[in-house]
Amino acid sequence: MEAVKCFSGGASLEADAEKILRAITPSLDPTKYKGQAGKIAVIGGCREYTGAPYFAAISALKLGADLSHVFCTEGAAMVIKSYSPELIVHPIFKESYSISDVDDEGRRHISKKILAEFDKWMERFDCLVIGPGLGRDPFLLECVSQIMKHARQSNVPMVVDADGLFLVTNSVDLVSGYPLAVLTPNVNEYKRLVQKVLGCDINDQDASGEVLSLSKRIGGVTILRKGKSDLISDGEIVQSVRIYGSPRRCGGQGDILSGSVAVFLSWARQHILASDGRPIISSKNPTVLGCIAASALLRKAASLAFEHKKRSTLTTDIIECLGQSLEDICPAS
Amino acid sequence: MEAVKCFSGGASLEADAEKILRAITPSLDPTKYKGQAGKIAVIGGCREYTGAPYFAAISALKLGADLSHVFCTEGAAMVIKSYSPELIVHPIFKESYSISDVDDEGRRHISKKILAEFDKWMERFDCLVIGPGLGRDPFLLECVSQIMKHARQSNVPMVVDADGLFLVTNSVDLVSGYPLAVLTPNVNEYKRLVQKVLGCDINDQDASGEVLSLSKRIGGVTILRKGKSDLISDGEIVQSVRIYGSPRRCGGQGDILSGSVAVFLSWARQHILASDGRPIISSKNPTVLGCIAASALLRKAASLAFEHKKRSTLTTDIIECLGQSLEDICPAS
Repeated sequence: MEAVKCFSGGASLEADAEKILRAITPSLDPTKYKGQAGKIAVIGGCREYTGAPYFAAISALKLGADLSHVFCTEGAAMVIKSYSPELIVHPIFKESYSISDVDDEGRRHISKKILAEFDKWMERFDCLVIGPGLGRDPFLLECVSQIMKHARQSNVPMVVDADGLFLVTNSVDLVSGYPLAVLTPNVNEYKRLVQKVLGCDINDQDASGEVLSLSKRIGGVTILRKGKSDLISDGEIVQSVRIYGSPRRCGGQGDILSGSVAVFLSWARQHILASDGRPIISSKNPTVLGCIAASALLRKAASLAFEHKKRSTLTTDIIECLGQSLEDICPAS
Repeated sequence: MEAVKCFSGGASLEADAEKILRAITPSLDPTKYKGQAGKIAVIGGCREYTGAPYFAAISALKLGADLSHVFCTEGAAMVIKSYSPELIVHPIFKESYSISDVDDEGRRHISKKILAEFDKWMERFDCLVIGPGLGRDPFLLECVSQIMKHARQSNVPMVVDADGLFLVTNSVDLVSGYPLAVLTPNVNEYKRLVQKVLGCDINDQDASGEVLSLSKRIGGVTILRKGKSDLISDGEIVQSVRIYGSPRRCGGQGDILSGSVAVFLSWARQHILASDGRPIISSKNPTVLGCIAASALLRKAASLAFEHKKRSTLTTDIIECLGQSLEDICPAS
């Protein structure tokens, strides 16, 4: 099956998304203890949005991570907690409306406290997912910028999606040149990113060349451009994943993807470390491998859910198919 | 089947976890009334954690307890209540952040009130579970220390896990010499406990000798060391449970275990009382018997859940398998 195809400068790299997924997924071993299969944190959830961070965080668990945290606003936390007792939800953020009577000095104090609270946890995480349901409140986004700077200093990988991409598009420096960052834009997010970074409109005639240039221009940050085929580039190569998939475009599928990229990326890093740098298939870059595996898995789960639910397929239905899809591709035993 | 094996000083005690489970599980008898099959209270649930106390409390019910209470912070209570109408949730605790403007005198007053509120209930409980989702707030932990002292004075058994172990590791006196206390550490909690109490690093060459020494040094408190095999010691004997089990290490399984130990321990006490001290299998100690039964049941439920859900097995899936697992080992009729 032609699962992944390389478009890079004519060189004919070809890989198999399912093979990559199988290669990086860790074996299940009774001697392991809690945490070793992945600890993920989602930064998102505000006054409007509570579903997105839940989707991202629960997807990480459903495909095998051991612990999944959400850092969100105080108001969002109660609701996200109530969706599932499996998540650890930290109500640390504030939005401008809730501190409207606080002066600049007071805001700096609050912001410092938020950052300190996050820092206590940060180094425990294998990957951050920044953006699902984050919203666009300026005070909140400023706090998240600081978190991204700290994460980068500590070499914690990050997957940036949704309103995290809004933040990054306006402050490309936050990720520029950081090899452990992944951006997962949809059509519109990608368009804005291209306009901002490459200074032109998108060019569908050379989609792969464009995503390659975009990644290169942001210093090798990995980009997963979502679409009919998913295009993945780290500025060196471009790969596409086109297996499976569903025609249903209900909101929330991007959150499954960002949570899944976080897990597979962590597994790919572990795998590369354990295999002493031996190249897997076509890339040694764990962010690219993570994107390929996550893309394939979501597309399979979406197609499985669509088989059963057709037009009424929702994101929760797709999440329920993650386990079966993973088992089909990479049996647990 | 070699289910439980004794490592104690070469003496070859051997028992069967399923046999113990069957021996201590009370028969279902229509003449009994509400409460006789067990009343459990979980002390835990704070700003960050709401899933853990829910898992512990609902597990107690799912294996046959009649009433399951949770004592937690005000913020956590709403969420825990929303997980299930089966639980009785008491929002009695406060954390430092919510009383930041209260002076020392005021705090003493609040603390006294919390203790009085708990005391009204305490003697109704067959066992307390201290720690699931407790967090590490100093004010809250101080209140819980007081509760532990009162419980001990009243001879109420207690299972200590998670952040309760953090508390106990720093104040071993809280449980030292109390035969109705059970500690259920995981790898990391065990390591800290050994370092603190025995003043050395853990020694996997003689795991059973070490858990025996640790238990002895804490005055015969029962320790259930969780791992690939679970090791259980009360300072007199060491037993291991290794039947069943699953390679999945999702967070929350420890909470199922602590809730289950509380129930089985209560049943074992009743059973020993009713059987007039006649020894059951290899131990007369209800805390050891409770640990063995709970360990075996969780391992069976985890293996059953894993059969169906594979890598996507979550703690809620395992809880759903508690009933079937218990029925398989010890049919209700």
